[in-house]
Amino acid sequence: MSVSVEPEDRFVIGVDFGTLSGRALVVRVRDGAELGTAVHAYRSGVMDSVLAADGQQLPADWALQDPDDYRDVLRHAVPAALAASGVPADRVVGIGIDFTACTVLPTLADGTPLCELPDLRTRPHAYVKLWKHHAAQHQADRINALAHQRGEPWIGRYGGKISAEWQYAKALQLLEEDPEIYTRAERWIEAADWIVWQLCGTETRNVCTAGYKGIHQDGRYPSRDYLAALNPDFPDFVQKIDGPLAALGERAGGLTAQAAAWTGLREGIAVAVGNVDAHVTAAAAQALEPGRLVAIMGTSTCHVVNGTELAEVAGMCGVVDGGISAGHWGYEAGQSGVGDIFGWYVEHAAPDGYASHESLSEEAAKQPVGAHGLVALDWWNGNRSLLVNHDLSGVIVGLTLATRPPDIYRALLESTAYGTRMIIEAFAEAGVPVNELVVAGGLTNNPLLMQIYADVTDRPLSIIGSAQGPALGSAIHAAVAAGAHPDVPAAAAVMGRVTRDAYLPDPERVRAYDALYAEYRRLHDHFGRGGDDVLLRLRTIRNTARSAAVPAPAGEVALPQEAMA
Amino acid sequence: MSVSVEPEDRFVIGVDFGTLSGRALVVRVRDGAELGTAVHAYRSGVMDSVLAADGQQLPADWALQDPDDYRDVLRHAVPAALAASGVPADRVVGIGIDFTACTVLPTLADGTPLCELPDLRTRPHAYVKLWKHHAAQHQADRINALAHQRGEPWIGRYGGKISAEWQYAKALQLLEEDPEIYTRAERWIEAADWIVWQLCGTETRNVCTAGYKGIHQDGRYPSRDYLAALNPDFPDFVQKIDGPLAALGERAGGLTAQAAAWTGLREGIAVAVGNVDAHVTAAAAQALEPGRLVAIMGTSTCHVVNGTELAEVAGMCGVVDGGISAGHWGYEAGQSGVGDIFGWYVEHAAPDGYASHESLSEEAAKQPVGAHGLVALDWWNGNRSLLVNHDLSGVIVGLTLATRPPDIYRALLESTAYGTRMIIEAFAEAGVPVNELVVAGGLTNNPLLMQIYADVTDRPLSIIGSAQGPALGSAIHAAVAAGAHPDVPAAAAVMGRVTRDAYLPDPERVRAYDALYAEYRRLHDHFGRGGDDVLLRLRTIRNTARSAAVPAPAGEVALPQEAMA
Repeated sequence: MSVSVEPEDRFVIGVDFGTLSGRALVVRVRDGAELGTAVHAYRSGVMDSVLAADGQQLPADWALQDPDDYRDVLRHAVPAALAASGVPADRVVGIGIDFTACTVLPTLADGTPLCELPDLRTRPHAYVKLWKHHAAQHQADRINALAHQRGEPWIGRYGGKISAEWQYAKALQLLEEDPEIYTRAERWIEAADWIVWQLCGTETRNVCTAGYKGIHQDGRYPSRDYLAALNPDFPDFVQKIDGPLAALGERAGGLTAQAAAWTGLREGIAVAVGNVDAHVTAAAAQALEPGRLVAIMGTSTCHVVNGTELAEVAGMCGVVDGGISAGHWGYEAGQSGVGDIFGWYVEHAAPDGYASHESLSEEAAKQPVGAHGLVALDWWNGNRSLLVNHDLSGVIVGLTLATRPPDIYRALLESTAYGTRMIIEAFAEAGVPVNELVVAGGLTNNPLLMQIYADVTDRPLSIIGSAQGPALGSAIHAAVAAGAHPDVPAAAAVMGRVTRDAYLPDPERVRAYDALYAEYRRLHDHFGRGGDDVLLRLRTIRNTARSAAVPAPAGEVALPQEAMA
Repeated sequence: MSVSVEPEDRFVIGVDFGTLSGRALVVRVRDGAELGTAVHAYRSGVMDSVLAADGQQLPADWALQDPDDYRDVLRHAVPAALAASGVPADRVVGIGIDFTACTVLPTLADGTPLCELPDLRTRPHAYVKLWKHHAAQHQADRINALAHQRGEPWIGRYGGKISAEWQYAKALQLLEEDPEIYTRAERWIEAADWIVWQLCGTETRNVCTAGYKGIHQDGRYPSRDYLAALNPDFPDFVQKIDGPLAALGERAGGLTAQAAAWTGLREGIAVAVGNVDAHVTAAAAQALEPGRLVAIMGTSTCHVVNGTELAEVAGMCGVVDGGISAGHWGYEAGQSGVGDIFGWYVEHAAPDGYASHESLSEEAAKQPVGAHGLVALDWWNGNRSLLVNHDLSGVIVGLTLATRPPDIYRALLESTAYGTRMIIEAFAEAGVPVNELVVAGGLTNNPLLMQIYADVTDRPLSIIGSAQGPALGSAIHAAVAAGAHPDVPAAAAVMGRVTRDAYLPDPERVRAYDALYAEYRRLHDHFGRGGDDVLLRLRTIRNTARSAAVPAPAGEVALPQEAMA
């Protein structure tokens, strides 16, 4: 779009740190216009098989990153975005960031990552543990068992389960596998807070990650007693994460001379407190009002919604005071496979001639609701909410000789919509109403999928008006930190963008989907809530078979000769 | 193979009438050597959309044939097979046939098909109703409901259900939809018996089709009272099918001059009583001994096994005294989708690069048992035994993002083996032991599939030694009818061919499959025996959606413009 820039215009920069790259976006303060963007890919990417420093093999389920790759985003993507925008650096009044979470690293008291100490360059545990580092399940299991056993008050805030991805499980793994690094780690910090520290020279802790990933509830962290019961060397862990918490949109400090040199921005401009990619998107989509559920739909889906009351919702990721925006209880939930499942189908399961989402969607869109006769359970990558079980797997029922690829593809789209409806209904039953869906992320490109979500959930569906939701959300927080807007909701109102009611439910299709959703729900409870644990048993059988190498059928038996050629 | 023919050698001809063509096979009496074969395709094939005579549209689920196409097999395939064999016609001492069943037609008292009367050429009901004519379901439902209501003694012999494919349902449809043809039909006769009538000029009724398809049990057909309660014009129906029954392998008569002219064979040679393709294969595979289950595995599977005792096995197709061979109770069961499901996968579901059974089998064979983590229910085409429900559909559980085509393909192969094991266990529980599997049909070509069947069923698996099992079986019956062997078992012993123990179960894989079969069985009972009737409800939803045309999601909503290109 063409933007006419006025002399009095001021700008902010939002930086979105993703899994493989970081993106900077230059945004105008008065209306959220996006002037320029640039992406910088992390040089070491995700280290999940070998450590870049020395090529050593990493164990299964590890996922590390090099923190200097994050600084490179500041060094390269920010100046490039600025250049692309044509905005003079002296018109930029603030910078804000969002990050994947829980992505966490050990540092010295001054913020130096341990992996940057010469004697620790080849110690895997000295590096950033990325959100999808899944090697601390053993520790998470103990964290959960002990919390329930002791009746810890905070466990209900996390749907009854602390994830292996979060701060405590990863720190406990560090302690138990490399105690020297654990001891030398003076700070254990979210990458979101660490990069802010790099920008402004001051350590801050944001309420969002402290709450969702750091078990900070009602002004307290888990007790020393509890931590000591987990491991006798763990009671002082909180000292490594503790510190004054800052609300989202607060000013963490001013840009340091060094960071100004990296970015090309002016020293001293406002640096906003750190934030999380999904949560910051709520502001970008003008969805801070209670009852507006933001679904960031990509390979997986993250849901965030503000509520006016505190409720403990079984199987949800968490509820945090001010976790999305100050003054509300922020709820988070998720679906661990969404675009991933559609991608699996197109890449690994669809016949030739059906090798694109476009062609499959086009064919699938022609069908009346229910005409394919299928229902699927969307658990190809496990279930994050409500069942919180990564060992569950996918199910398709209703297959016939007449089933064709668009039928299966449509059933997969629908299955994820049913999964979202399960979450919405669980929120509603717990007293957290959801009146509207606000969708962001790459899957907004599929109109059939969007219409199915509106019809299945019987909710109006709004679509974020920016392709860079997280970066725009970070820019909004930067504008508040810079004092350009009084608070995040006010900034979101003028800088955020959403197409309200882009898809409306059709009453006839809603009714048709009610019947299919009832079948999904019945299957969900049968396979997920103890009716039949076949999926869990099959996972065990699979894992045992793969490791034990039961010999395969030989297939070398000679066939009897046919009597005649 | 090279066969050296001796001057004293005598020969018989077996003719197998299939769904689309008939095959003739010249076989040596003393050892079953196959000397020549020929196939003739039916000119009108299967008439399932239009009637050949005038091009009129046929209703849904109809499937007709023209009986003169069967005569053409005698006119063309028999002389061609004889020529190919090099056997002089005067050395051929008998001819036998087998047919699909229940394939049935209305004729005059002299055997003239009604469709050959000039005034009835364009009346669909005057033609042969092929086995897969499925338009009499409404009549079958009434036949079953009334039988159970009245406690008819024969209903238990058919697993509690008379099929819509069989003589009574098809005849009742004829009566109710075209009563004039019904009235003019002096005989209602299986095509198997009709073609024998064409060969020898004498009407006979074989015990096999009379029992399995004609509800002849303990010397009686269903009572006039019962038939009158079905329809007041139906009580005399049995007069159209009644007649002296002939045991399998009996001589029906001598070849007529006319049939000798058609076939090039000598007038007066023995013509064997009619028989059914699956049942006649038991003799060809030397599997007449009780406990040897013959599985004829093609698009679907038909199972036949002799037992020494009468047992009523719920959900089986039927039990008939002498129905496979004289002196035993012949049991029949079936799986309605087997090769059809594998074919569906390769044709309509497998990605490019996996488009052959060979490549999929080769990849799938490399896996240890259970490594794919999948279990499927093999109901893509409904379930014939034990559930007898064509509205059931297929299920796959255990899918993940790591699931690949060979995993699914192997799970489909295994699902049909589990289905066979369910049938074997049902027989065993009812007192009909199954000690060995004897497999015939096209799927014997897949060694992986065969080994899976041996491992899943924990039974030794023998493979028929002829690619033309039914025709060889018919030839064996012809040899008995000609007096060349004293009875069918004696003839089978020298003329049949089987590779005994071609595949043996591996104890380790048997144990691994036991665990997976337990999951199959649990899913089978959950989805098939009332735990959750979701499959039946989905079928109803599907059928309603297809007929009612609930509008599809529009998908024409304009996407919000992205802020930046």
